[in-house]
Amino acid sequence: MVVKINENYLKLESSYLFVEVARREAEFQKNHPDADIIKMGIGDVTKPLVPKVVEAFKSAVDEMAEADSFKGYGPEQGYDFLANAIIETDFKPYGVSLDTDEIFISDGAKCDTGNIQELFDLNNKVAVTDPVYTVYVDTNVMAGRTGFMNDDGMYDGLVYLKCNAENDFIPELPEEPVDIIYLCYPNNPTGTTLTKEQLKVFVDYARENKSVILFDAAYEKFINEDNVPHSIYEIEGAKEVAIEFRSFSKTAGFTGTRCAYTVVPKELKGYTEDGEEQSLNALWNRRQTTKFNGVSYPVQKAAEAALSKEGQEQIKEVIDYYMENAKVIRESLTDLGLQVYGGVSSPYIWVKTPNNMDSWAFFDLLLNEANVIGTPGSGFGPSGEGYLRLTAFNTLENTKEAMDRISKLDF
Amino acid sequence: MVVKINENYLKLESSYLFVEVARREAEFQKNHPDADIIKMGIGDVTKPLVPKVVEAFKSAVDEMAEADSFKGYGPEQGYDFLANAIIETDFKPYGVSLDTDEIFISDGAKCDTGNIQELFDLNNKVAVTDPVYTVYVDTNVMAGRTGFMNDDGMYDGLVYLKCNAENDFIPELPEEPVDIIYLCYPNNPTGTTLTKEQLKVFVDYARENKSVILFDAAYEKFINEDNVPHSIYEIEGAKEVAIEFRSFSKTAGFTGTRCAYTVVPKELKGYTEDGEEQSLNALWNRRQTTKFNGVSYPVQKAAEAALSKEGQEQIKEVIDYYMENAKVIRESLTDLGLQVYGGVSSPYIWVKTPNNMDSWAFFDLLLNEANVIGTPGSGFGPSGEGYLRLTAFNTLENTKEAMDRISKLDF
Repeated sequence: MVVKINENYLKLESSYLFVEVARREAEFQKNHPDADIIKMGIGDVTKPLVPKVVEAFKSAVDEMAEADSFKGYGPEQGYDFLANAIIETDFKPYGVSLDTDEIFISDGAKCDTGNIQELFDLNNKVAVTDPVYTVYVDTNVMAGRTGFMNDDGMYDGLVYLKCNAENDFIPELPEEPVDIIYLCYPNNPTGTTLTKEQLKVFVDYARENKSVILFDAAYEKFINEDNVPHSIYEIEGAKEVAIEFRSFSKTAGFTGTRCAYTVVPKELKGYTEDGEEQSLNALWNRRQTTKFNGVSYPVQKAAEAALSKEGQEQIKEVIDYYMENAKVIRESLTDLGLQVYGGVSSPYIWVKTPNNMDSWAFFDLLLNEANVIGTPGSGFGPSGEGYLRLTAFNTLENTKEAMDRISKLDF
Repeated sequence: MVVKINENYLKLESSYLFVEVARREAEFQKNHPDADIIKMGIGDVTKPLVPKVVEAFKSAVDEMAEADSFKGYGPEQGYDFLANAIIETDFKPYGVSLDTDEIFISDGAKCDTGNIQELFDLNNKVAVTDPVYTVYVDTNVMAGRTGFMNDDGMYDGLVYLKCNAENDFIPELPEEPVDIIYLCYPNNPTGTTLTKEQLKVFVDYARENKSVILFDAAYEKFINEDNVPHSIYEIEGAKEVAIEFRSFSKTAGFTGTRCAYTVVPKELKGYTEDGEEQSLNALWNRRQTTKFNGVSYPVQKAAEAALSKEGQEQIKEVIDYYMENAKVIRESLTDLGLQVYGGVSSPYIWVKTPNNMDSWAFFDLLLNEANVIGTPGSGFGPSGEGYLRLTAFNTLENTKEAMDRISKLDF
């Protein structure tokens, strides 16, 4: 006997994307020490926490400083005050009613979207969109739900739903039956959205096939279009088939503060091999109570403040600022004759490379000639080849300067 | 095709322990509304965060309020400032040198001790002490490393290392070869410790058998005995075979603030089926970067402050306070002729029930006759039967009052 590792980890293709981006940036900066590089690659916020959040955050730390108001272990599922604020602010206005015990507060949607697959048998068939937020794929590889990556850049055993300009970034239903479907809308990385009708196609499919949709709505607060659902539960019957992930990261600037939540409706069922129904709410509750100890109390109070009327107003100003950047990027690149997608209800702009350049060639062109950093679309999956992602999280000044530089390029 | 659940979850015996404790307490309180119940059951701290921690926590929130000092995504492994403070304060004084990239900051030792098993193949043989912190057991059940629970209260496929008064709470080496051994010292729930020589027996076994020791040192700051190691890495060769878990929860009062860390030395190896060596540090890094997004920045600054000289002095006062309670409990119960264990280098006191009462009978006696709440030892595993755990986290006044009431009982 010797201790044996989980060899599924060895199937992972090392994610060189952001490492390689950083390497090329560093090399360029070294060779051009005076170049003023504008970073529009990483999807991280830049604006500080809003005043209402800061005030509540500090006030909660003060509570921790006095014996009478000190908080030790909280509920693993999160405090009711936050779950209830979430229900009131994030769902009720859209006609969605949820119970407190259907909300599970966590420290990040990355954790939740990564951990959720633990609830499911290894033999379920999993579908992802292509391109995709790689966490969905990698966590299934690590669990053993796939084989190795094929030459086409796809893992054996996973179903990839192609999204590109040809289908207007609307994934088609899988041709073979699948049990679990990951959807992220507004989409990372393409910035595109689905209308209610388009999302309903997936909900109906899942109801018919007893599949589960893992719906990542981390960018919900960026939605600016009327017919784009804020929650999958706006679609009839979705509570029977969908888990929804939300985050304070991009919406309230919490990428460094850490708070998110997952909705697991009590109507939602999985099945045993024998066909017996099982509550996924109960299973996730068991998972979280066993392997998680709740989110920091002051962080939960800060998140609650973000959901208050004043907090929402302050946050909207920040999001409007980012969305002004997105508009500048969209319009500038469109004026240059480039095809651009996203950026209307999302901080991401997905740019078709000119002249069928590959993603890395366009990345290098922007870096070398405009000193602007994007993210090559091919890093998000084979269907991302020929695209590049730009983000709206820089300053308006830098964003305008970047567009100005790009406008002087000769494609 | 229908979506199938992970049926290993159905093997879990619902953990009724603390639920049942709460139920009996509530029923008693209802029938005796005037009774002043003293809680010595749950292992949660009660003292507020110390001033040095509060100051740093709030100051870091202030940083988050300004664009120039705002922090977005931090490293998934935690900030170097905290990892380096950990190495300097928690390890260097004990002659243990570690590299920054051997420290992984997290939001809790429960998460880390629960998640660590993902790195290992399902066919590894796992040993736990009995009684045990149930997270080690439950997370292996959920992953599929066991069968169902047998009538003796043990899961099929797990190896239980008995710890009771007969062997002075020193587990013997497993009779059959095992690949993974969970050890928690100072121990939860028994409050007992291992000397360097006793721990060395396990390190030597692991080196000889190429096993891995998962060493939970969450109660390290409570150690008051000279020959009790603070870190398993004080034992020669332990870096080749051990992962160590630490937490700010009990030591710095962070149960509601959430910060912990895990040490995975680079010398530590696992093996593929083909016998190829694999770095567990690299695997854990991959796990954490894929499924975790780092700890809240203000929380990491608060933890760093806890490790400062002033922070450590303030924390020591709090721990000394709890340990005074432990001393009161130990001495009072010993004076009454009860056998007590732990409470010297641990906030837990493990009481042998008088007259071979079972754990729940003694629990009921203390609740009904002294209005004192403990935790029945049988809830921590079959070898916990006939014991009860008391914790030192109440106030000194309440602790003394509880002992006074118990002294008036007629066993």
